[in-house]
Amino acid sequence: MPEAATGKVERGAHRYPVRVYFEDTDTAQMVYHANYLRFMERARTEVLRLCGVSQSVSMSGEPREALGYAVKSCALEFLAPARLDDLLEVRTETSDVGAAFIDFRQDIWRGDTAIASAVVRVVCLDGRGKPRRQPAHLIARLDSILPVRSLAKA
Amino acid sequence: MPEAATGKVERGAHRYPVRVYFEDTDTAQMVYHANYLRFMERARTEVLRLCGVSQSVSMSGEPREALGYAVKSCALEFLAPARLDDLLEVRTETSDVGAAFIDFRQDIWRGDTAIASAVVRVVCLDGRGKPRRQPAHLIARLDSILPVRSLAKA
Amino acid sequence: MPEAATGKVERGAHRYPVRVYFEDTDTAQMVYHANYLRFMERARTEVLRLCGVSQSVSMSGEPREALGYAVKSCALEFLAPARLDDLLEVRTETSDVGAAFIDFRQDIWRGDTAIASAVVRVVCLDGRGKPRRQPAHLIARLDSILPVRSLAKA
Amino acid sequence: MPEAATGKVERGAHRYPVRVYFEDTDTAQMVYHANYLRFMERARTEVLRLCGVSQSVSMSGEPREALGYAVKSCALEFLAPARLDDLLEVRTETSDVGAAFIDFRQDIWRGDTAIASAVVRVVCLDGRGKPRRQPAHLIARLDSILPVRSLAKA
Repeated sequence: MPEAATGKVERGAHRYPVRVYFEDTDTAQMVYHANYLRFMERARTEVLRLCGVSQSVSMSGEPREALGYAVKSCALEFLAPARLDDLLEVRTETSDVGAAFIDFRQDIWRGDTAIASAVVRVVCLDGRGKPRRQPAHLIARLDSILPVRSLAKA
Repeated sequence: MPEAATGKVERGAHRYPVRVYFEDTDTAQMVYHANYLRFMERARTEVLRLCGVSQSVSMSGEPREALGYAVKSCALEFLAPARLDDLLEVRTETSDVGAAFIDFRQDIWRGDTAIASAVVRVVCLDGRGKPRRQPAHLIARLDSILPVRSLAKA
Repeated sequence: MPEAATGKVERGAHRYPVRVYFEDTDTAQMVYHANYLRFMERARTEVLRLCGVSQSVSMSGEPREALGYAVKSCALEFLAPARLDDLLEVRTETSDVGAAFIDFRQDIWRGDTAIASAVVRVVCLDGRGKPRRQPAHLIARLDSILPVRSLAKA
Repeated sequence: MPEAATGKVERGAHRYPVRVYFEDTDTAQMVYHANYLRFMERARTEVLRLCGVSQSVSMSGEPREALGYAVKSCALEFLAPARLDDLLEVRTETSDVGAAFIDFRQDIWRGDTAIASAVVRVVCLDGRGKPRRQPAHLIARLDSILPVRSLAKA
């Protein structure tokens, strides 16, 4: 059942739950900083799945037609520590879209406490690792579920 | 809401869903072997949560009273590769229980395909890292949801 | 022998070698983006060790006297993919120092190819997780091995 | 310089150093159990490199000729906790070799303290994921640096 996406869109953001397990923590008894990037990547994968993109499918096939996403840059702020057993929510919004990139704004919350915040740029690549134009239907679908902020402002 | 456990008990086993994300795979395009241990640990944490044990709570407090679990040994077999986007199920059963240990049998399935299988012994430790007797109510609760096989046989 | 630091200071930067293993890669056959943060953290730990700070020691003891570092923010750029078996070098420089923080500039290279680049702010915390002033001798030692750029400019 | 292997063979075992970093630990303030498998895999990769096998090279190329190793099974015992900043040594010996498999005995030590012990079976696969016969020169090379115990006994 790989088509069933986890998380839901509500009030303009995709909301993805993450439980903190031992594997996510470190000896300082908080979540290890790099692991927030893992949580955010899980959420983006689910957003793409909602848009009809399953990367395990789209990355295979003829290299020029293949489609995958790679992180190009990110800026992260760590606001409060998360700990073992915490139930977190990753909130994902679309802040900008170009021909070959998407900028996501992603915030992690534990109830009313902001844990971490990031802007992440992903670029669309073909099977040879070259940037490629994103399919129009994917962008249209993304904009329908997570309206692009910069477009909304224009 | 840390009390809400993920997974469910059905037909004698605890069933815990795991989606395979990029972080779980490696360049051989399958799940990296050590990551199956992470999946199994998530499932055991949820079994303990169903038994009323939240380790973030039980490990804090007075060291002699504190209670946590550590893996003592495990035997793993890797049966078939899992891949990106796979939706797996970790099935956990109790195969033996002693004063200070629990032996779990854990199998990972993708639909009808067996992916990995393990027997994992966890030991109950106090806050000083010494083995300690498990509370009777925990064992009773565990036996009520995942009847201990070796007891059942006796 | 925990006092033996890995890496060396040369031409104004700390240089720390990292071999890419299966655990570091993902199904796209490159290093998973979050893992560059792991590589950079290893290098910063070695820089602190060169400065005489062993966090396993300094984080224990009386909470107000304890000293550890946590990542407060980071900005990362991914410039070229690294792959299995690559031998990388993490180059760490000090770009700014405050009473309770250090800004590191960290670049990852494979030979002449720039792989990733980051600015990472770490804050000094006591045993209760409160920001605390860094010891003068640590800053003096850091400035002696990796002269602070912003100071050098002034 | 991907051909430079880390670690050395001494007194019948390959010895590979591992420093424990934050990423390796968990909130119980010890190394997370699954991470010992990562340490052991790094050591096996270096043993194969000493035998002239670079998996990033050998896994590419024509699928029937390609060669890679996958873990088939392992049995692990956790003997004592390792902690942040520990300098560990992974000792690898060859306990058995077949046409398409190698059994490694791997022990992790911190000075005189045994931390973890494992027997790991890896199988040799071609580029289609099918078991394949290992090249004779690889086995000869392996036996010359880490003499196979079961052969030695015969």
